[in-house]
This record gives sequence, structure tokens and C-alpha cells, in this order.
Amino acid sequence: MYKDLVEKLVQKNDSRILLAVIDGIGDISVGELGGKTPLEAALTPEMDRLAQGGALGVHIPIARGITPGSGPAHMGLFGYDPVEYQVGRGVLAALGVGFKLKHGDLAARINFCTVNDKGMVTDRRAGRITTEKCVELVGMLTGIRIKGVETFVVPVKQHRACVVFRGAGLNDDIQDTDPGLVGLKPVPVTGSDKSHRIVQEFLRKAEKILKDLHPANFLLLRGFALHREFPLVDERFGLTAAAIALYPMYRGVASLIGMNVMKSDPQNLSGQAKAVSKALDSGHDFIFLHHKPADSSGEDGNVEAKIEAIEEFDRALPSILDSRLDVVCITGDHSTPCPMKLHSWHSVPVLINGGPQRTGYSTGFSERQALSGAMGSFMSTDIMPLLLASAGKLAKFGA
Amino acid sequence: MYKDLVEKLVQKNDSRILLAVIDGIGDISVGELGGKTPLEAALTPEMDRLAQGGALGVHIPIARGITPGSGPAHMGLFGYDPVEYQVGRGVLAALGVGFKLKHGDLAARINFCTVNDKGMVTDRRAGRITTEKCVELVGMLTGIRIKGVETFVVPVKQHRACVVFRGAGLNDDIQDTDPGLVGLKPVPVTGSDKSHRIVQEFLRKAEKILKDLHPANFLLLRGFALHREFPLVDERFGLTAAAIALYPMYRGVASLIGMNVMKSDPQNLSGQAKAVSKALDSGHDFIFLHHKPADSSGEDGNVEAKIEAIEEFDRALPSILDSRLDVVCITGDHSTPCPMKLHSWHSVPVLINGGPQRTGYSTGFSERQALSGAMGSFMSTDIMPLLLASAGKLAKFGA
Repeated sequence: MYKDLVEKLVQKNDSRILLAVIDGIGDISVGELGGKTPLEAALTPEMDRLAQGGALGVHIPIARGITPGSGPAHMGLFGYDPVEYQVGRGVLAALGVGFKLKHGDLAARINFCTVNDKGMVTDRRAGRITTEKCVELVGMLTGIRIKGVETFVVPVKQHRACVVFRGAGLNDDIQDTDPGLVGLKPVPVTGSDKSHRIVQEFLRKAEKILKDLHPANFLLLRGFALHREFPLVDERFGLTAAAIALYPMYRGVASLIGMNVMKSDPQNLSGQAKAVSKALDSGHDFIFLHHKPADSSGEDGNVEAKIEAIEEFDRALPSILDSRLDVVCITGDHSTPCPMKLHSWHSVPVLINGGPQRTGYSTGFSERQALSGAMGSFMSTDIMPLLLASAGKLAKFGA
Repeated sequence: MYKDLVEKLVQKNDSRILLAVIDGIGDISVGELGGKTPLEAALTPEMDRLAQGGALGVHIPIARGITPGSGPAHMGLFGYDPVEYQVGRGVLAALGVGFKLKHGDLAARINFCTVNDKGMVTDRRAGRITTEKCVELVGMLTGIRIKGVETFVVPVKQHRACVVFRGAGLNDDIQDTDPGLVGLKPVPVTGSDKSHRIVQEFLRKAEKILKDLHPANFLLLRGFALHREFPLVDERFGLTAAAIALYPMYRGVASLIGMNVMKSDPQNLSGQAKAVSKALDSGHDFIFLHHKPADSSGEDGNVEAKIEAIEEFDRALPSILDSRLDVVCITGDHSTPCPMKLHSWHSVPVLINGGPQRTGYSTGFSERQALSGAMGSFMSTDIMPLLLASAGKLAKFGA
């Protein structure tokens, strides 16, 4: 409703904000925990301390009852309306491996697959070939030339790669060729406009190159998506933002809105903590830190692993909390309840520590305490304004 | 903001949902109950049990401060924006008695009334004539023929009937002829377009037919409304829906969006419970059950009767809760506080039991507990997405 209001009120200052996302942190009552959630059951002295000195609330990722994928859920956390700013899988895959997409590029995910002599798919992942093999196959496909576009093929991991077509007038209204099941032929690309003809030619040429390379003797295309440039987090919120995420997809979403993706070496929370310090050294005033394992263990239904993922983050917190940070927010992008083994629509606890807050409402960080926290319930897109305000980065509206 | 998002995510499955509406259930603090509400004072062991094992929240029927009529309040519960999908009283009256309206029909409510020799209304309800008398009068009016339209007159109850004009190019911008007070003449219909001329002719011809039939020697027209077809609950939400309501108006609203109206014989909660079972037998996966007396007693300001209406529903619950139901929601369409003797804008408690929920937040079903329930506060139109999600009928949004 108040689109652009926040942007108009942004005022820069030296305050520094950390947005730490524990992916899929929210959960529901778990029988084996006596009805507690993993977050309630986890020992989290550091987050509890921040909760006591800060303010809690819950956010609704997209809308009531709507379960988000990771892309839209993160767009919401970054203050971007997740329905207005939709990102296709092809674009996310290309961005995730650091490919510099341009406005109008058409991207799709590639799965190398196995087909039999009748052209039917017998393995949609080509026996999960090694990443080395993937790089080799991509090298062969890189030779493909199609008139009217530049074609880029980029390896991702194992049987996964992506393809990007660059040229004028492309569209992404193209069906997946992945039949979704083995025993079926790939879905033919039947349109006749420029985009369809380019994809048809790419498939013909790829087929010739791959046909004798069993098990990866063909490929499937999924998630066609046109890249459109989004307004940058700097332009919208006056932030110099850094992203510290170990998984390509989250780096991809962050880079889409102009966050600088920091390297984390080693690839764990202690490496991420060092990257926070480096990001502050290099002048960033907004840091997005992403912690994945809570989501993965939720999807596995592994309650113990989810508790451990949360506790691992809590133990790492002292090393992450650089003294130069003024406002710290800890939340999740969505809930991934262990009993469901899926993302869900349930609200997500939010903790903000730093800046002027109503404190003393909460003794610890949990779904239940967040629901009766000082900040109440709000949409995920409200988090960015709340962080900017807490950091003194939003001017008064009206006189 | 996110119009059509839910529809795009609908996925069908075998789960079955019950939406039980205790009409006007919400209330405010009642002095004679020591500040409790009727729902708080009522003994409701069955709903308390569902609350303990489910999740509570409150819904806002239309918007903060807005008091809804029954029509818009139910549209909201059914997931239809009550401001976008407005239904006129005339249409509701016709649908309520089972008249099959077509797109573009112009409907109005009829009150038979008494006028004196100066044409002034002396009784707006014609002494509440019997329904038998009403049927007889309607039979006489049925002979009215008006060029350019088909005219239907349908009895409702006592002094109430309705009229439907069917023809091209009608509009419903026509004032009520009911002066609202006795001692005044009916409000003349003064426009000159097709719709006004038809109504004028109908009134002239009805006057001639009725003039010697004291006390019902004239009629008043109210609630002119053009029928427009709404998207059906099946198309929007993939649901095969049944309505079990004893009052015509609620059957009317339900039929407007394509719910199948079930017969309930006997006309009480035990009959309604049997109708739930029949609706499930016949393949329905969404059942709307309506319980009226809480609203009526609220409008009478009768606290004891409202408590009894709620307790009556609670006692009937075990017979209603068919084991084939997966998700059960109990709520009201709006509040009807006894101290106000009117509908009101106050939020309405919502209980959802079944599907993945955060449980253990509540010990019973009441306004107060609902406000601090696991689901928080939301709009009435959020209930349908929450029910679909709880029943596994909504796919993930985005990747």
C-alpha cells in the first residue's frame, strides 16, 4: 500500500545492521519434544540474552496460509514485495554460480540425463555424474553457436548446469522439457517464436554432442526465466550491503538486488563470522548472513539435527556479533516444521536487538515468546523498515 | 494485494474441511457476567478440547471498525473480498428461497403493507400476515405481465416476498419505496430509464390487484439488486462445497458461490449433523455449517439465551465431528454483543483443529484466548487460505 514510502524517508548514517537468517527456523509442536518446537527445545543462551535486551515479533512470509519457496521468502526479508519481485529458477541458478546476468537474458536450469534408444528418459540425473564430469560436458556444449543470440552454458554441481541465452526480444513462456518421471520422452518445445526456436536449436545441437556420452547422453531444461533488473538495495534503502551465504541460491538472490557476495573461507559459521568482520572493514553497513542447516534438517524431519543446527548458530553468535554492529536481527525466511518435512506457511519468530526498543517482554527466543513479543505480528517486508528505523536510517514522515 | 495468488497455488487432495459458523459468536464484556463474554461464561468442553489440540486466532470481518451485515461477513469467511463481491439484499432474498437467478436479473424484497385511504403507510408489515396468506397474494401478483421483461414474484415468509425482473439492460440504481416509518407515503419511483419504468408499472399493477385486500393492500420494495455471477468456490479453490444452513439467507450466500445446499431434516443441529455425514457421503470436501441462535439472542440482548445457543452447539459437536473430517474450523461471521443488541466490528475468535498447527497455546475457546492464540490476528478472507493450507491443498509459492 505504501510502496516507495520507505525509500523516500531513507537517511544515511553510520549505523550498521546485521540480518542473520536461520533458514527454516520456525516449526510447530513436535510430539517427541513434549509439544515444544526445536527452537523452544534448543539451548540458546546467546539468542535468549539478545531477546531479553531486545524486542521480539513474528513475521508472515508472504500471506496467511501461503508457503514460500526460498527465493520469495528472502525477497520479503530484504524488503522486496515477493509477489511483485518474482525470480525464476533459471535466473537463480545462474546467479547462484556467479554468472553475471544482464537484463533480458533468458536462463534455464540444465539436468544432464540418460535416455534409451527410444528417446525415453531412464535417469533424470544421469546417475548423478561428478562435478568434474559436469564441467567437461559443459565445456563441450560451450561450442554451441545459435544465430541471433549469445549462448552461455555454466556448470553448477554434479548433473546440474544452466544455460543462458542473451539477445533482444526473448521471453520465458517456455515449458520445462523435463517430463518429471522416467519412462517418458522429454517434453518437446513446440512454440515457433524466437525464444522457442533458439531453445529447439540448442536442444538439437546438444543432442548431437551428447548422444554417445552415456550416462549423460542428453539434457533436460527446466525453469526458463527472463532476467529483469531489480531496483538495488543501495538505491532503495541507501545501504551498502554484503551477503555471507554458503549456498549458491542465497548468494544468487542477494546479488540480484546488488548485495556484495563475500567469500567465506572456511565454509562454515566460523568462516562466516570472519567474513562479517571483513564486510565491516570494507565499509558495508548491512550484512545478510545465511545459516542453512536448520532448514535442511527440518526437511529431513530430523528434530535432533534441527536443534543442533540452531544451537550451533547460537554458539557461533559471540564470534559473529562484531562490536561495530548497532542493530542485530535474527529470524528465518520461513518455517520448515520437522513433522511436515516441508516449508510451511506458519509465522516466523523475529528478534531485533539494538536501537530503541521496548524491552523486557521476553525471556528467550522462541515461536511462542515471539508471538507475544513487543513488536507483534507483521509481514516479512516490514522487517527492513523496522531495521532501518532501529538504526536511525528513516526520517519522519510529514511534519 | 495478492489477488489470485491462492487460486494459482490450489492443489486438490482428499482432505475434508468443516467450517462451522456460530453466527454472531463474538461479544464484549458483559456486566452481569462479571465482565466475561457469553463465550467465556458458556460451558464448552468440546470446543475447549479442540482449542487445546488446535490453534486459535481472531479474524477481522471487513476492516477495523467496520460492522458487517451477514452477507459480506460470510463472503469474507468463504475467501471472497467482501467489498469486491457485494451482494444486494434483493438477490440474497431470492437466492435464499431457492430461486434460480440468472446473470443480470434485477431482484428486490417485497414487504406487504397496509395503507390508508390517503395512501399513507399505517403498517409496514401488514399485521404480519400468515405465510399462507403471503403465498395467496403472491399467486395473484404472478399474473402481472410487463413488456420487455419476465416478472417473477416469489413468497418468502409472513409479509415478506420478493420480485425478480429478467431482461436485458437492467440496473439496480433504484431507491427503496419503503418510507421506513408509518404515517408516510411510499417513496415514489421517479427515474425514467427502463428499470425505473418497469418498477413503476409493477407497482401500478400490484396496487390495482391488492387495493381491496386489507390489511395487505399494498407493497413496499426494498434492496434492489442486480444479480451478477461470482466465480465459484470450485473454480477458485478446487473445493466441492456443501452448505448446511437452516436460514434462507445463508443458503442464498452459499449458493451464490456454487456451494450445494444440503437439506437438513429435522431442522435443528441434530439434523445438521446428519447432513454433514450425507455431504461427506456424496463426495463434498468442504462443508459450511451455520448455527444461527447465538446471533439472534445477541440481537435480543439475551445473555442467557446466547450462552445456551453456544452450549447447544458444543453439545452437538461430537455428532457433527465426523471422523472423515481432516480440518475443523469453528468461528463466527461477526460479533453480536448482547450489550449492543447489534452486529459489531469487534474481532471474532477462530479455532482450527487438524493439520499441522502450533498447539498448546490455549486451554479453551474464548475471545481472550483467541487473541493470544498461535495464529494471531488476521482478516476474515485469510481463513480460507489457512484452511486450505492446513488441509494440504496449497502448493508452495516460488522456488
